[in-house]
Amino acid sequence: MLQLYIGNKNYSSWSMRPWVLMKAAGIAFDEVKVRFDSFEPDSTFKRTMGDLVPTGKVPALVIDDQPGRAPQVVWDTLAIAETLAERFPDHALWPTDPRRRALARSLCAEMHSGFTALRSHCPMNIEAQLPEIGARVMAEQPGVRADLARIEAMWTGCLSGHGGPWLMGDRLGIVDAYYAPVAMRLRGYALPVHAAVADYIERLSASPGVAAWIADALAEHDFLDFEEPYRSAR
Amino acid sequence: MLQLYIGNKNYSSWSMRPWVLMKAAGIAFDEVKVRFDSFEPDSTFKRTMGDLVPTGKVPALVIDDQPGRAPQVVWDTLAIAETLAERFPDHALWPTDPRRRALARSLCAEMHSGFTALRSHCPMNIEAQLPEIGARVMAEQPGVRADLARIEAMWTGCLSGHGGPWLMGDRLGIVDAYYAPVAMRLRGYALPVHAAVADYIERLSASPGVAAWIADALAEHDFLDFEEPYRSAR
Repeated sequence: MLQLYIGNKNYSSWSMRPWVLMKAAGIAFDEVKVRFDSFEPDSTFKRTMGDLVPTGKVPALVIDDQPGRAPQVVWDTLAIAETLAERFPDHALWPTDPRRRALARSLCAEMHSGFTALRSHCPMNIEAQLPEIGARVMAEQPGVRADLARIEAMWTGCLSGHGGPWLMGDRLGIVDAYYAPVAMRLRGYALPVHAAVADYIERLSASPGVAAWIADALAEHDFLDFEEPYRSAR
Repeated sequence: MLQLYIGNKNYSSWSMRPWVLMKAAGIAFDEVKVRFDSFEPDSTFKRTMGDLVPTGKVPALVIDDQPGRAPQVVWDTLAIAETLAERFPDHALWPTDPRRRALARSLCAEMHSGFTALRSHCPMNIEAQLPEIGARVMAEQPGVRADLARIEAMWTGCLSGHGGPWLMGDRLGIVDAYYAPVAMRLRGYALPVHAAVADYIERLSASPGVAAWIADALAEHDFLDFEEPYRSAR
């Protein structure tokens, strides 16, 4: 009934979000992985995703539950998250308190269009350990330092304000899934964080959905040079 | 009860979205305009918005309806739109049909993180008529041509698929409000569009919420050189 199209697990930060969200919530779905052969228009990836969604990007959620009607395709992580939250109200993917829910939406939207310095200088690469790159980027890129400061303030504020163990309280929800790829970056590039943030990263990495994604990413062994600005080989 | 913080109406495309949405739906709010004096950290704009929201950006919606509790601040257009849709269900800001609603969310999320070529090469500038710039950008920037092709396909598909006059059907909703600044760009830079798209732009520009925003923008007379890559003076 639900299919999630994703890219390479080692690299695709946007794919990770809805995958982790559904795994963490126990929402059943079939995974369809479309390998990043390249992003050129004639690549298998672009042709496959271009046939499915107008943006030609992952992730995409295919909902096939109306007999006699074509399956519906929902693209973009935020639209997927809202659609899942609506279809599975019992899972409380957003906080049930309206005030906390509005905050959760602000935090996800902030991620959706922001943190461009961190995203461009520290692309997600789960299998790589790149502390030297992290140290260099922190020294040279004020935008990365500003992004990290904001993430630390956000996470420590959420964890203390909502009681933990997750950002919005006692449930791993959309906000945690949304920031999971950020946690992967902070870990892989060994960016300096406060103890509460480091603890949250470890807790999140060990949670079943995120741990399963990491294990799959490590098992891929699919080195892509165009995704590896900092390494020339595995 | 509701306050919307916005920037200069001539330039602030993100501010335009929730303002137009609420005006079109007849949702009462107080406007708080924070002039773009500059975007330096010590500017009045950045200090004012930085005191209100962690991103220091407009728009922001302040909800003050719980006696004895601090007002809630919701930032980012998508979070504001979702929060308003939830608080005012009778206004059907999203389509009421779940399938159409999921599509609407995909289209808004696509705008939220996309169309970067159009956004950077054709910044919103309501009072300016810049057809020569539009022609040059179309000739020189394949990214702008691709963005325009996608917008034309999206709008014509929506208008024919949902029966018009608005993108999702008979109500001007979140998707129209989301793409209103794009319509301003297509108009101001005179980008070449099909008749159905040109008609939609005119219809949208004449709708009460958008027309009111345009009138206010034209009355501003507040030339900001850092927002004017293509003009040196009014």
